[in-house]
Amino acid sequence: MTTTGVWLIGARGSVAVTSMVGALALRAGLAEPLGCVTELPELAGPALPGLADLEFGGHDISDLTLDKKVESLVAAGVLPGRPAAAVADRLAELQRELRPVPTAGNQLEAARLIAQDIDDFRRRRGLERVVVINVSSTEPVVTPHPAHESLAALREAMAHTPVLPPSSLYAYAAFSANCSFVDFTPSTGSRLPALRELAALHGLPYAGHDGKTGETLVKSVLAPMFAMRHLRVRTWSGTNLLGGGDGANLADPAANAAKAGSKQRVLAETLGYQPEGSSHIEYVDDIGDFKTAWDLITFSGFLGTRMRMEFSWHGCDSALAAPLVLDLARLTAAAHAAGRGGPLLELAFFFKDPIGEVPHALPDQWAALVAFVRGLHAPA
Amino acid sequence: MTTTGVWLIGARGSVAVTSMVGALALRAGLAEPLGCVTELPELAGPALPGLADLEFGGHDISDLTLDKKVESLVAAGVLPGRPAAAVADRLAELQRELRPVPTAGNQLEAARLIAQDIDDFRRRRGLERVVVINVSSTEPVVTPHPAHESLAALREAMAHTPVLPPSSLYAYAAFSANCSFVDFTPSTGSRLPALRELAALHGLPYAGHDGKTGETLVKSVLAPMFAMRHLRVRTWSGTNLLGGGDGANLADPAANAAKAGSKQRVLAETLGYQPEGSSHIEYVDDIGDFKTAWDLITFSGFLGTRMRMEFSWHGCDSALAAPLVLDLARLTAAAHAAGRGGPLLELAFFFKDPIGEVPHALPDQWAALVAFVRGLHAPA
Amino acid sequence: MTTTGVWLIGARGSVAVTSMVGALALRAGLAEPLGCVTELPELAGPALPGLADLEFGGHDISDLTLDKKVESLVAAGVLPGRPAAAVADRLAELQRELRPVPTAGNQLEAARLIAQDIDDFRRRRGLERVVVINVSSTEPVVTPHPAHESLAALREAMAHTPVLPPSSLYAYAAFSANCSFVDFTPSTGSRLPALRELAALHGLPYAGHDGKTGETLVKSVLAPMFAMRHLRVRTWSGTNLLGGGDGANLADPAANAAKAGSKQRVLAETLGYQPEGSSHIEYVDDIGDFKTAWDLITFSGFLGTRMRMEFSWHGCDSALAAPLVLDLARLTAAAHAAGRGGPLLELAFFFKDPIGEVPHALPDQWAALVAFVRGLHAPA
Amino acid sequence: MTTTGVWLIGARGSVAVTSMVGALALRAGLAEPLGCVTELPELAGPALPGLADLEFGGHDISDLTLDKKVESLVAAGVLPGRPAAAVADRLAELQRELRPVPTAGNQLEAARLIAQDIDDFRRRRGLERVVVINVSSTEPVVTPHPAHESLAALREAMAHTPVLPPSSLYAYAAFSANCSFVDFTPSTGSRLPALRELAALHGLPYAGHDGKTGETLVKSVLAPMFAMRHLRVRTWSGTNLLGGGDGANLADPAANAAKAGSKQRVLAETLGYQPEGSSHIEYVDDIGDFKTAWDLITFSGFLGTRMRMEFSWHGCDSALAAPLVLDLARLTAAAHAAGRGGPLLELAFFFKDPIGEVPHALPDQWAALVAFVRGLHAPA
Repeated sequence: MTTTGVWLIGARGSVAVTSMVGALALRAGLAEPLGCVTELPELAGPALPGLADLEFGGHDISDLTLDKKVESLVAAGVLPGRPAAAVADRLAELQRELRPVPTAGNQLEAARLIAQDIDDFRRRRGLERVVVINVSSTEPVVTPHPAHESLAALREAMAHTPVLPPSSLYAYAAFSANCSFVDFTPSTGSRLPALRELAALHGLPYAGHDGKTGETLVKSVLAPMFAMRHLRVRTWSGTNLLGGGDGANLADPAANAAKAGSKQRVLAETLGYQPEGSSHIEYVDDIGDFKTAWDLITFSGFLGTRMRMEFSWHGCDSALAAPLVLDLARLTAAAHAAGRGGPLLELAFFFKDPIGEVPHALPDQWAALVAFVRGLHAPA
Repeated sequence: MTTTGVWLIGARGSVAVTSMVGALALRAGLAEPLGCVTELPELAGPALPGLADLEFGGHDISDLTLDKKVESLVAAGVLPGRPAAAVADRLAELQRELRPVPTAGNQLEAARLIAQDIDDFRRRRGLERVVVINVSSTEPVVTPHPAHESLAALREAMAHTPVLPPSSLYAYAAFSANCSFVDFTPSTGSRLPALRELAALHGLPYAGHDGKTGETLVKSVLAPMFAMRHLRVRTWSGTNLLGGGDGANLADPAANAAKAGSKQRVLAETLGYQPEGSSHIEYVDDIGDFKTAWDLITFSGFLGTRMRMEFSWHGCDSALAAPLVLDLARLTAAAHAAGRGGPLLELAFFFKDPIGEVPHALPDQWAALVAFVRGLHAPA
Repeated sequence: MTTTGVWLIGARGSVAVTSMVGALALRAGLAEPLGCVTELPELAGPALPGLADLEFGGHDISDLTLDKKVESLVAAGVLPGRPAAAVADRLAELQRELRPVPTAGNQLEAARLIAQDIDDFRRRRGLERVVVINVSSTEPVVTPHPAHESLAALREAMAHTPVLPPSSLYAYAAFSANCSFVDFTPSTGSRLPALRELAALHGLPYAGHDGKTGETLVKSVLAPMFAMRHLRVRTWSGTNLLGGGDGANLADPAANAAKAGSKQRVLAETLGYQPEGSSHIEYVDDIGDFKTAWDLITFSGFLGTRMRMEFSWHGCDSALAAPLVLDLARLTAAAHAAGRGGPLLELAFFFKDPIGEVPHALPDQWAALVAFVRGLHAPA
Repeated sequence: MTTTGVWLIGARGSVAVTSMVGALALRAGLAEPLGCVTELPELAGPALPGLADLEFGGHDISDLTLDKKVESLVAAGVLPGRPAAAVADRLAELQRELRPVPTAGNQLEAARLIAQDIDDFRRRRGLERVVVINVSSTEPVVTPHPAHESLAALREAMAHTPVLPPSSLYAYAAFSANCSFVDFTPSTGSRLPALRELAALHGLPYAGHDGKTGETLVKSVLAPMFAMRHLRVRTWSGTNLLGGGDGANLADPAANAAKAGSKQRVLAETLGYQPEGSSHIEYVDDIGDFKTAWDLITFSGFLGTRMRMEFSWHGCDSALAAPLVLDLARLTAAAHAAGRGGPLLELAFFFKDPIGEVPHALPDQWAALVAFVRGLHAPA
């Protein structure tokens, strides 16, 4: 198997660094591949690049060194000390593949420089293909602009106006560099007609949006349970307490709105109606990466009898996200290799707000994923 | 559609009375059929007897009048007052179809008298077929006896020794009366080779065991979620606080053991291994029918990071069980009508401890159920 | 004992009607006086007016009849059906003492008319004194106005400008009518220098603010526990889901701000520092009066070890508030009778945001209350 | 201040080792004295020996080295790595003061050898006095024996029959060596008339029983809250999941019974009646020292309205117990120095099952403790 590049936007952040350190640790046999769904027997197979075949690089606006970041992740309990120490000497090498965000006079030029960085990475490491994955902080909801509607208009606008949010600029650069693109955040990313036109032009696959790591994951199995039992959900109200970089960012009401909407969508999609209640996000610095979500569900059963359920989820966001980043890199690369272009609807399993008319119940998403991967392993 | 009889063992208990009052209320359009899965669009259709086509009767060792029982269920918040009041005048009629448990010199004779009661009910009401459903209190685990192994040995033994627990005596009588049989409790019921031989002899369908109404229902979607995400469940520990008749009964360690084992089985079946922890049942009279279950789940993810989840479930046991009793009556009658004999594996969706090598993940059970019912509606 | 009047602002609301129906039911011996702290042996005694000595009246902007309101409270499970039915015939009589809010050309005139209504009630019923208690909906935080600073300035301003929020207008009217006043809500009420001047002028007692009924009650015992054990609380984050009239009103960000601030104050006061986290209020219509609060507390112990606690509180707000309203009426009337004027600091036990430099730990507030009441019973 | 010895029974166990490492770390200024109540301003003062004045020794049946134990406590997250590493070189010295449990032909001889070990420690380290504290595993409930009733009978019996459980043998030895004794476990310890006679003979103080570290601590503030608000607790049902050495031991039904009884006592004592429900203990190896307790409380308020509360407590048992061990050592030594003999009722604050007719509400216990310590600091 030829090697596959994984280019991470936000490469010095918690999710990216946990992904990279984890891949090194798994490759060295220091841990079981827990959390990696592509390592399950239902999905493993020859079409997917091996964990040892992944090479990492990326962009970040921060210049925090990887060893400092790893140190803080170990202190926070996100990374276990032993594997982190064991792969420490590989970090320096890895760091050489990280790039600052280029500065440029306009977005067209910026995109060109970003694409150049990615292309240099591909050549330097002799990679057959590169998957670009956005794991940077969530952006505020973006204001629509006419230039978002077509590639021609977009290119013209980019030459003089900053019309794209950063996440979409990276998507543009990725597609320009002939790379597939994965939106792991709720930011706009590839969600603009002009960018989808660009992806289509190059026949490139893309996937998204917003990695499904905690509370929404639980919702995606509990909501179908209520539906299958014909129990009427009256209220579904959730509180998410989280710290860390993403927490601070989501405390901003604009970013919060993007995320909270994405978190309730699964209910309407799986129940067929929208129950009362909302999903609330609160920044609590002290909690760090160990997010706590609490949900209250009230429902009616036979003859209208009222009942209720509560759950608390104490998950480590980066530890839940990182293996999915590796999974998405492997799956998207394999799809690209198999000649798949356009949105990868079969990857809905991984996302809170999946692209397209797809099932939102986790088991249905799982079935679609298994069928897709079987097709990759044994093409007709 | 000809009418179908539903003969309830434990006919004056909470589940039975909630089922009967509920069927009357639904028939009168006094409530939506919440909790009835056979009323969902995926399952509804011509092969199932209508709710209005069900006629009820049953045995009980108690002689509590139905109006007294309804009164206590309303006071406890299990039955809403309005529909209960609206169907009060039908209760007297219903009560005429209830029978005391016959006394007899030996179990062969007892079975004959029970079968006679059921047969009289069928003739008197002009029913095409009758489904016998055991909703009485959970029995202690039964001691094996050689006579359980074959019908011939059983019949010989029954003539002089009480070799069958009550639940199995009812199953014997049901099959003798040419009726299908549903084990809604964890009691032995039809789970003896001799009884299965009898069912096969008459070509009768049967289903069981132990209605899946609360904590186990939640487990049957959460455990597959952990499996699909390759998260290793370390501990799954549950506490069930419940009052009411079944609670008092389950406080008996012997019955408790039967139930608690049945409640953890779903974990090994869906995870592929048995996590630490057990399911504990405690009788709390004050809580009555509104069972509270609390579960703690600890799990490991990427690189071994430890995480946890807790849930509390506040469900009304009778309100969760009653619509499933109606569902099982309709489905079993339709299977019988379609000529199905033997264990109805496709009804695993309804049970904590389903018969046979069947899936334990709720979505897989749902898929099997939908396929089965479609087959009934549109036979090849 | 001569009779005491209780004049309720918001007299047709849930708290007021539950208080009045409850007083009637207790008087008739239909229920134990649960929730009434003045019925505890530590507090009961001759100085307090008996429950049978309370006469009710009040103002409300709504004209909903009491029987309709009682019906809805019974349907919602706030009032039990039996005592509510038993006192139904007394409601018509009670209703005759309720008055619409008078309309007037300016606030001075409005206050005069309100005071007149209260005074008429006192005369008509032959009451020795009347306690006015505000149990109406929470107001938005009020904008300061120079006229709030002195009684002279206030009177001048009231003649032409609506300078007072409704709660303060009622406090003004109460004091003008020579009545004591209790702020059961977080609204401004008597919290203006001009009004305190007026109370002092008449030698009248007053108490407040914001009845401590649920989450804050729990905080007022748990926070001191952490302090007494030298455990450092890092985060205390709360979510309150509530429906009903007060819920809808608190969904308004302005009112919400007033309440949420009042709910965290106990932490700084009892811990000596303000931990991270906030108290969030969300309106969920379906939940009605049965508020659900969930709090997460993270704390550090020996050598910095991190630990956590969560609690859920499912309380019926009106059922928790109503007996406290009766308690406050009895205690304030007794204080008035004993010649006490000014703020009743000893009633801090009842309030989220008590007046003055008082203890915020519930046990200290209890001790102060017990000493105060003993003084009333056995004056020196 | 002369130095004070702390002789720990179970000196190589989690609580003891956390106490000793913690004392070294605090002395070295490596951590704040969180969890140590004697470091609060209300209690600190000249009468208490300083943390730097404590010298440790003890008995244990295990011969696990302290560095191995510390390693496992760090791995389990009970001890933070940094302070543990910083005091590592002091552990070897500390270890020299630990003794194996002596073997002897009879209990009289065994007690003599234990007392000898303690006395040697006192002389060798030049200590003014020694406090013996039992932090070993919980014993099964002991069978009464006539020799427990008087010192004379006990001494005679000990010469030939093993009439004392280990915890009481240590208490006997401690008193014989002229040391005060603290029962930090629910084991019998000093709770025998004969032993109290021995303590009285020597004028020695003692304290106990069963350190109040988690669920019971919370109960001791919540139960009084319900009482102060005249809310009727109907059910209080608790589940404790715990691993570690004490967990394994408490899984034994006999030890469990001792503990579970001790955990519910606070309810009857503070409420004045015993609500329904029990406290259940379950051993879950995976959870280790981070105990999870979940409690359900149902209660009735005004007019009987039913409400409920739940809490989960995730505490590290050793980190909660260790600072209390240091507190008890300092307080008991100071009491001894002040000439106090007999049971130290004022230390009820620290215990689940305190000796004597003392308050069980935490705030009352706190007030008694503060008064006691003030008396020690400023003797009349």
